[in-house]
Amino acid sequence: MGSEDKLISWICRLTIITAFFLIGFIIGWFARPTTVNHGHVSNSFLHDFLDEMQAENIKHHLRKFTRLPHLAGTQQNLDLAEQIRAEWMEFGLDSVELVPYDVLLSYPNQTNPNYISIVDHLGNEIFNTSLAEPVPEGYEDVTDIVPPYSAFSAKGQPEGELVYVNYGRTEDFFKLQRELGINCSGKILIARYGKIFRGNKVKNAMLAGAKGIVLFSDPADYCANGVEPYPDGWNLPGGGAQRGNVLNLNGAGDPLTPGYPAKEYTYRSGLEDAVGLPKIPVHPIGYHDAVHLLQHMGGPLPPDNWKGALNVSYRIGPGFMDGLNQNKVRMNIHTNNQVTRIYNVIGWIRGAVEPGWRPRRTLIFASWDAEEFGLLGSTEWAEKVRLYLFIYLSIYLSIYLSIYINGEEGMTLYQSWHKRDNSTERDAPWISKLGSGSDFEAYFIRLGIASGRARYTKNRKTERYSSYPVYHSVYETYEIVERFYDPSFRRLEAVARVRGGLIYSLADSLVLPLDCVEYAMSLTKYANSIYQLALKHPAAMQQHSVSFDSLFSAVENFTVAAGDFHQRLDQLDTSNALDVRMVNDQLMYLERAFIDPLGLPGRPFYRHIIFAPSSHNKYAGESFPGIYDALFDIENAVDQQKAWDEVKRQISIAAFTVNAAAETLKPFVN
Amino acid sequence: MGSEDKLISWICRLTIITAFFLIGFIIGWFARPTTVNHGHVSNSFLHDFLDEMQAENIKHHLRKFTRLPHLAGTQQNLDLAEQIRAEWMEFGLDSVELVPYDVLLSYPNQTNPNYISIVDHLGNEIFNTSLAEPVPEGYEDVTDIVPPYSAFSAKGQPEGELVYVNYGRTEDFFKLQRELGINCSGKILIARYGKIFRGNKVKNAMLAGAKGIVLFSDPADYCANGVEPYPDGWNLPGGGAQRGNVLNLNGAGDPLTPGYPAKEYTYRSGLEDAVGLPKIPVHPIGYHDAVHLLQHMGGPLPPDNWKGALNVSYRIGPGFMDGLNQNKVRMNIHTNNQVTRIYNVIGWIRGAVEPGWRPRRTLIFASWDAEEFGLLGSTEWAEKVRLYLFIYLSIYLSIYLSIYINGEEGMTLYQSWHKRDNSTERDAPWISKLGSGSDFEAYFIRLGIASGRARYTKNRKTERYSSYPVYHSVYETYEIVERFYDPSFRRLEAVARVRGGLIYSLADSLVLPLDCVEYAMSLTKYANSIYQLALKHPAAMQQHSVSFDSLFSAVENFTVAAGDFHQRLDQLDTSNALDVRMVNDQLMYLERAFIDPLGLPGRPFYRHIIFAPSSHNKYAGESFPGIYDALFDIENAVDQQKAWDEVKRQISIAAFTVNAAAETLKPFVN
Repeated sequence: MGSEDKLISWICRLTIITAFFLIGFIIGWFARPTTVNHGHVSNSFLHDFLDEMQAENIKHHLRKFTRLPHLAGTQQNLDLAEQIRAEWMEFGLDSVELVPYDVLLSYPNQTNPNYISIVDHLGNEIFNTSLAEPVPEGYEDVTDIVPPYSAFSAKGQPEGELVYVNYGRTEDFFKLQRELGINCSGKILIARYGKIFRGNKVKNAMLAGAKGIVLFSDPADYCANGVEPYPDGWNLPGGGAQRGNVLNLNGAGDPLTPGYPAKEYTYRSGLEDAVGLPKIPVHPIGYHDAVHLLQHMGGPLPPDNWKGALNVSYRIGPGFMDGLNQNKVRMNIHTNNQVTRIYNVIGWIRGAVEPGWRPRRTLIFASWDAEEFGLLGSTEWAEKVRLYLFIYLSIYLSIYLSIYINGEEGMTLYQSWHKRDNSTERDAPWISKLGSGSDFEAYFIRLGIASGRARYTKNRKTERYSSYPVYHSVYETYEIVERFYDPSFRRLEAVARVRGGLIYSLADSLVLPLDCVEYAMSLTKYANSIYQLALKHPAAMQQHSVSFDSLFSAVENFTVAAGDFHQRLDQLDTSNALDVRMVNDQLMYLERAFIDPLGLPGRPFYRHIIFAPSSHNKYAGESFPGIYDALFDIENAVDQQKAWDEVKRQISIAAFTVNAAAETLKPFVN
Repeated sequence: MGSEDKLISWICRLTIITAFFLIGFIIGWFARPTTVNHGHVSNSFLHDFLDEMQAENIKHHLRKFTRLPHLAGTQQNLDLAEQIRAEWMEFGLDSVELVPYDVLLSYPNQTNPNYISIVDHLGNEIFNTSLAEPVPEGYEDVTDIVPPYSAFSAKGQPEGELVYVNYGRTEDFFKLQRELGINCSGKILIARYGKIFRGNKVKNAMLAGAKGIVLFSDPADYCANGVEPYPDGWNLPGGGAQRGNVLNLNGAGDPLTPGYPAKEYTYRSGLEDAVGLPKIPVHPIGYHDAVHLLQHMGGPLPPDNWKGALNVSYRIGPGFMDGLNQNKVRMNIHTNNQVTRIYNVIGWIRGAVEPGWRPRRTLIFASWDAEEFGLLGSTEWAEKVRLYLFIYLSIYLSIYLSIYINGEEGMTLYQSWHKRDNSTERDAPWISKLGSGSDFEAYFIRLGIASGRARYTKNRKTERYSSYPVYHSVYETYEIVERFYDPSFRRLEAVARVRGGLIYSLADSLVLPLDCVEYAMSLTKYANSIYQLALKHPAAMQQHSVSFDSLFSAVENFTVAAGDFHQRLDQLDTSNALDVRMVNDQLMYLERAFIDPLGLPGRPFYRHIIFAPSSHNKYAGESFPGIYDALFDIENAVDQQKAWDEVKRQISIAAFTVNAAAETLKPFVN
């Protein structure tokens, strides 16, 4: 790291909630399992293990790892990686190593800051957006705070009329172009944050032919009612802006080395062939600045639900300054892409029976670098994985606004869940789709390793803001956790214990605690749901002879096979180590059976036929994504025959894959 | 099957040498292995097992399965599949089933036969090639003999001047176009069979812009010196012609369902999107007919080594009939593609300890349908395989001209090999590259399942003809084996026993009998060889900073890891079933580690980084095929920078893959 790099500071979350917990747990399969019979989970050890997790320790670790900014690729972040290594060794892991990669990162130019201007007809900049956020209390002396920027933005100074595109979703562009008749080509767009991953907004802007796009946080999406802005509450202040990358990687990891780990010897493509880089400038601003850009826009009135909570009289554009069209907007973006070294920390606990307790299976602990730059650390490591990982547990974002959980002291976590999630009559939570935007992506969606996460979240029915208000701003501090989110640190403790218990059970149960019957129920639900979507086109379905029979039949086969499998499991001779291993192989490889080596159309690194990040919002999960994408906006496809043929092809791929997965659950001789 | 289909007859090899032996053996991994300790291979059973294989039985089976033509997709072939099922059940397999697929096959039009004509300037056909081969003695009453044709040829009646392109290899076209200045565009080409897979000749013809291509068997390539044509010897008669498909599938299997098994519910692309179908008519002829087409050609003289053994005064063309250019050649091709049901036969022997001997591991026996139509049966089955196959043994072509082995009675097979293969000072044969053209392809090159074959072959140094003379002609009969190749059937017996012993050892050894050190030695050899190839361009290597260091370093890592692995194997506690299973996992998955999910450039179904069929000849194996193809003809690449960048990229992929494979051999905690 040169001294220049050292000045570069963090991208986001001074409080990470996740800093120490931004650790993926992977349970390796090549354990040296015990030769004595373990029976089921050794509960006495479990109790000791869970007792190790104490609110006070969590608080201490969180404080320690959030004291200074630590942007990926900086000396500070390497220092933290070294510290994690040291602590993990001290905790008693068998081995811990730093695993470096040289990946493409993106930093603002320190001598030439990014901002957005209003320019008059003479070319004078009559208004400029802020270069940085007002620093929160207590951080006045911290120097290495990176200003808000959109990582991997193209450089450039495009100038043009401004068009407001609401959230910049696919449906927003459809409305603009098809109903309002507004052409975005050659314009600069302004979109509010929220609803979808920001990279998808940028992609949509490029598809619409825009010259650049400005992203802002509207109070409607980043402030809760009755809550004060930070530091008096946990709402986003007007000067806060959301950092984050604007890539469309589709799981590729490092943009220069798609499919291969970014090691010293790895060939790097030129920037022109890089995966997922936006071709246009992108920049984030806060709502104080956004008001200036929005308040004098010309053009037609927006639909009512496009109006945010800013006190401006909304117009959509194009046009500027009361429709006089004299003034324009200029983006000034000087962000640099550069190949930079990052470090994952990888630790192992070997499964074995030795003096003292060890899990039956090997545990791998991973602290992933460069998550915010496109899941780079986790994906590069995944690109070297060869077939032997069993399950991935994500430890990202523990409490995601647990602030809403009050009056539940004395309840168990299970009671608390049951009280609040009363939409179901079951006695266990539904497993929901994972989506993406976090480091499990490469393991789950590319490699087919069963993955999961458990966290507190807000009540999505009553809380309408996106994400949580200070997300990716400078106000995402340790103090916001200590003062508002979880003052006692008991919720963080609860989450840690749930995760710890899961890991313990996965690592030490004789038979893996996975339930294929639950998977079958989900498949049934997803098949019904995609079928309902297709039924919106009854005439076309009939005309093109589109049938979902093969998919329903495959799901039925899977359901029967899953039921039979678990029945056989009840008869298992658990004293026969190889018999146990055989059913565990079947459980472990089931997820892998959903992987199509050919990948989804146009997304070679998204290979899971049941789950993928939505093509329109990376954060959201889509079930049967191949069929979904084939059906999307199909009524407007130019070649209807071809479009419906693709639907039929995707149905057949899904049916085949589910059938093949069902096969893996069967006994091996009929 | 309709009655019309029943009339359609076989494509080739009335004698298959392989009919019954065209059976792939796969050893499944999900065995129910014994809980008692097997020790190493139980030799008493091995002896009994090998004794079961008797020349007389082999002769009996060969006769039975070659009595009638049985073209893929016909009732006769289904009858044989049923018979195989019945016999396997009788042999005591645990289960045997017919597994159907509906794949694209290709048959001549029965009312409109294929032929090639010479037409005069008035359009009259003044010469036509034969519609069928003279039927060999003893087969006069057999009705369902399919005439020679090129399966999957395009239909059409193109007419034009004739150009002779030697073997139609890449280098032949380079010579024609670059040295002799002959443009093949719009011409009809005539190429002799041999040297490379016929599909590659057709691909080259299409790339050169030809309208069609005629393939003929030259005596130089299909007759051995001093041998009579069949039935008096085993040379190809002048009326014999070589059938066979002319696809360029690159491992895709059924052309309409690449990547997915061709089941009832599978979406089929239209013919226009099918994989690998030639766009031009193709037709095979014998040398008696070829003389008529070649004897009056105009154009320049060919290079001396382009002149075959036909008694004609060679010219290359274009032009026809003594250069007067009055007459042309017309192809009349009416072959139809049609989706047709085929049947693999799949049988299982479950690994277990039960009354009587059983192997430790499960054996799968497969009789693949439609091999000659592009390895369709084996590939479709492979497309459903989910991760649990361990090794593939090919049983195709047992004796491939064992006729040359005389005076070795009383020797062991090992002594006989040692005597004849004296090019090496080792005491074991070198393993050579597998290439393709047989049913192991999808298992080895696509899925990374260790594969092998063992067979007699000719001495390639002294015997210069291609393949064996009657290859794919009507003269490939049972009688040619009985009278010339192996009258005592002792060589077939020897091959059967070698294969049987291999299977026994693979199925029953406690530790899998695979040697990673041998693999390391081969990798070293291949790395040196590809490096030497690159060194032909020293200036460009320097200019573009091309280094093979990373590859050599990776191979060294692999070599060390392999040595260490086998050392640890010596210390293995063989009484610990899970420890044994762990090293067997490592041995089994090593081959899989060489698979790149992204495939080779432009060949998504060829995914093995160490081995692939040559891009210029499907029959031949190429090592480090990605690098090889990047280097091929690089001196003529238009964009040198781009071409050498691709070489560097391929070196980095190879280095990464070899390193990753080495990792899988290491113990799991450092």
